[in-house]
Amino acid sequence: MRGFIIGRFQPFHNGHLNVIKKISKEVDELIIGIGSAQKSHTLDNPFTAGERIMMITKTLKNFDFQYYVIPINDIEFNAIWVSYVEALTPPFDVVYSGNSLVRELFEERGYMVKKPEMFNRKEYSGTEIRRRMLNGEEWEPLVPKEVAEVIKEIRGVERLIRLSEKDY
Amino acid sequence: MRGFIIGRFQPFHNGHLNVIKKISKEVDELIIGIGSAQKSHTLDNPFTAGERIMMITKTLKNFDFQYYVIPINDIEFNAIWVSYVEALTPPFDVVYSGNSLVRELFEERGYMVKKPEMFNRKEYSGTEIRRRMLNGEEWEPLVPKEVAEVIKEIRGVERLIRLSEKDY
Amino acid sequence: MRGFIIGRFQPFHNGHLNVIKKISKEVDELIIGIGSAQKSHTLDNPFTAGERIMMITKTLKNFDFQYYVIPINDIEFNAIWVSYVEALTPPFDVVYSGNSLVRELFEERGYMVKKPEMFNRKEYSGTEIRRRMLNGEEWEPLVPKEVAEVIKEIRGVERLIRLSEKDY
Amino acid sequence: MRGFIIGRFQPFHNGHLNVIKKISKEVDELIIGIGSAQKSHTLDNPFTAGERIMMITKTLKNFDFQYYVIPINDIEFNAIWVSYVEALTPPFDVVYSGNSLVRELFEERGYMVKKPEMFNRKEYSGTEIRRRMLNGEEWEPLVPKEVAEVIKEIRGVERLIRLSEKDY
Amino acid sequence: MRGFIIGRFQPFHNGHLNVIKKISKEVDELIIGIGSAQKSHTLDNPFTAGERIMMITKTLKNFDFQYYVIPINDIEFNAIWVSYVEALTPPFDVVYSGNSLVRELFEERGYMVKKPEMFNRKEYSGTEIRRRMLNGEEWEPLVPKEVAEVIKEIRGVERLIRLSEKDY
Amino acid sequence: MRGFIIGRFQPFHNGHLNVIKKISKEVDELIIGIGSAQKSHTLDNPFTAGERIMMITKTLKNFDFQYYVIPINDIEFNAIWVSYVEALTPPFDVVYSGNSLVRELFEERGYMVKKPEMFNRKEYSGTEIRRRMLNGEEWEPLVPKEVAEVIKEIRGVERLIRLSEKDY
Repeated sequence: MRGFIIGRFQPFHNGHLNVIKKISKEVDELIIGIGSAQKSHTLDNPFTAGERIMMITKTLKNFDFQYYVIPINDIEFNAIWVSYVEALTPPFDVVYSGNSLVRELFEERGYMVKKPEMFNRKEYSGTEIRRRMLNGEEWEPLVPKEVAEVIKEIRGVERLIRLSEKDY
Repeated sequence: MRGFIIGRFQPFHNGHLNVIKKISKEVDELIIGIGSAQKSHTLDNPFTAGERIMMITKTLKNFDFQYYVIPINDIEFNAIWVSYVEALTPPFDVVYSGNSLVRELFEERGYMVKKPEMFNRKEYSGTEIRRRMLNGEEWEPLVPKEVAEVIKEIRGVERLIRLSEKDY
Repeated sequence: MRGFIIGRFQPFHNGHLNVIKKISKEVDELIIGIGSAQKSHTLDNPFTAGERIMMITKTLKNFDFQYYVIPINDIEFNAIWVSYVEALTPPFDVVYSGNSLVRELFEERGYMVKKPEMFNRKEYSGTEIRRRMLNGEEWEPLVPKEVAEVIKEIRGVERLIRLSEKDY
Repeated sequence: MRGFIIGRFQPFHNGHLNVIKKISKEVDELIIGIGSAQKSHTLDNPFTAGERIMMITKTLKNFDFQYYVIPINDIEFNAIWVSYVEALTPPFDVVYSGNSLVRELFEERGYMVKKPEMFNRKEYSGTEIRRRMLNGEEWEPLVPKEVAEVIKEIRGVERLIRLSEKDY
Repeated sequence: MRGFIIGRFQPFHNGHLNVIKKISKEVDELIIGIGSAQKSHTLDNPFTAGERIMMITKTLKNFDFQYYVIPINDIEFNAIWVSYVEALTPPFDVVYSGNSLVRELFEERGYMVKKPEMFNRKEYSGTEIRRRMLNGEEWEPLVPKEVAEVIKEIRGVERLIRLSEKDY
Repeated sequence: MRGFIIGRFQPFHNGHLNVIKKISKEVDELIIGIGSAQKSHTLDNPFTAGERIMMITKTLKNFDFQYYVIPINDIEFNAIWVSYVEALTPPFDVVYSGNSLVRELFEERGYMVKKPEMFNRKEYSGTEIRRRMLNGEEWEPLVPKEVAEVIKEIRGVERLIRLSEKDY
């Protein structure tokens, strides 16, 4: 059985990793869709698709499990979005999502949809991590160490801070 | 004389029907544009273009009047929008709209534009109808019975409720 | 039962009309998709979607049969095309097409697909009609008289001839 | 040395003119990008790209300085935006911008980026000028006289006022 | 009176220059549209919009005449193309074109369209110039000397030759 | 060092596999771009991006080497294509390509570009393999056995044959 999970992963954090580890016991293979792939360089979406792929791949490197990481652009046309995902991915049987729109779209197409159990949502959250980055607080414990390394390598925190500068 | 009216029709309601009945006495044929055709499955735009076409066509079935129902996508380029509408529709002489942008764009292109008289805007309103659907209140009296049937057939209220579920 | 047929209708001719008349005995309602809706003003696709809608609607005016005419743009992404059609149309059960790509795409999605019987393909053909228009030969007998009227009204033959002028 | 500056110029005002005059002493040639070129007919973006090009060209007419005015659409894909600008413009060495996103994108691509000194930002501001237009206050002193003439010619204030009318 | 001319200018050559010189005596201002602006790096369209803008601007530098150079992407939707051009340019009264599609589209919108007189089309032709570049023949006499300089600066002939290498 | 290679992989064959094996000795990681990702269901591009990802991933399963498989749509805008690839992929140092356009675009951006050595191009070729599929000849020996399995699972040969049927 092949599963599908989608997230923006801005950045990929321990909450994502926990969910994926759990799902890996339920399915044979997992497709990880990078949502809003075309977005980057904003306060809510600082990292490019390529950077997010690197975060995930490095984290899962020693993880003995068949997975695929596939960038998926927003297409702003909900009624065809499932079909768009299907065109870009190997076929799958079950979808994992905590997002009501994603769940509705896949359910209407007849997919089995599961709500993955998340824990410590207050800290394991992209919003919280980006907030800490901007405020100079400690964010590294909330992400896998490989993700922290990628973010350092691409100087991601500096990017975020520069993007937050007031225009005139 | 041929007229043009555009709306999102989320859903088509008695206010729309009243306006169309009135216009049908002023023009020989009416083009009904389905605006934001590409949008669906959101709290503000729950229904697909195809579903909205069905609502309108079934309601007007026994209505002895030549009309066209044509889906029109948003193109996010106001200065060419009138030209885009013209490409997709038979030629028309008069535009009916209560929306200031639509009126401005057609007036700049030399069209006669009329503001249709609406009544009972408080109840005959897509916003109000969707609010009632979400809250389990009675919404059926605000739409033609054919529209209520379509919404039941496609399980539209259930869709709206599921879309309103909180993500995590 | 609702059927779907798609064509470019450049222009709508007697062959199309015959097929639609035949299908109308097999289904309760028919959706007529205007393919390549965004194309116009070329030698192969001289007429806009709006003009083609007018040809079809005027021809079928006194035809007692529920049908929908819906412009469908090319999207150059075959794997999502069926989903795109579904978003813009009421649901349908059977597809009529003589085009192998259209048939393949709908069959892969589980639709029943029928090949409509065509006759006199040599004359009832958009290519042949446009050829005659360009050469000043008689083309009117090959199309419904309402179509000939529309083409006259929009001065379609003159357009085609001007488009065929050699550039330098 | 060739410079690049981008703005929405809704409308082009004295603040813009001052900046450009100053830059013209630092570079040999200046490329003036019209940002959000596809936007027009909204309260924040009332003027088309063509109208904005006219404002700038007429203002700089007797200005002895080589410049280029180039419309640049939003592409909603930050990571490729610099490359998109490069494709549409002659090559340049230095970028002038007060916008943190623009600065970040060009700096990541290795460009020298300067923050132009602005003065009287309270009055020399598109937002302030559009506010005055809507309220019938005096706005002409805030723009070059050629810009005021263009806006009169295209009846721009009337457009803005009509766009602000409440829909129903 | 303002005129509009459009070309791909791959590259800008003496034939183009002659036409523009002639037109400059008939109109007060001229808008020069760079067609297929998004195309570059192919055998038929080797130069980017930015490179073509540079060729034209440098050639016309000492030419005392008000002109605008504006890149115009193909939009593959003929029926709205005139409207698209209008959005990106100052208003104009007359169109100069030797292309039958361009002429037809503007004439249908009510524009005066003139066919510019060309001479020595056999040599003053983009196709011929690119052929010579590929074959190592003399092409410089067919273009203004500023264009030859730009092409040398960007190493355009080398690009063309590399693009013609056979793939495997 | 990270490398990048792009192909349409219609289908992935032994020639591709040989090249990738060779490259894997020169780089630490390899990004495999699926070109023309949006294309499928044509005689030249029968397989979807998802199907091609599956072919590659299954073939390389037991291959001890870090690689990424990333679908890349055509964008029909050569001058920004490299930037588009960069946005979707981890950063890379060297590009492998036998296509002159790809080589030119990356070289202009300063990348090291290598021409991979191919052998038996006559048989190890997508064109040849699709020709054999259509003619009922033996094609399986030309692809890895995992690819043959995927094509059987998705009934790819039958799809190709149906797509080749003559329209009327």
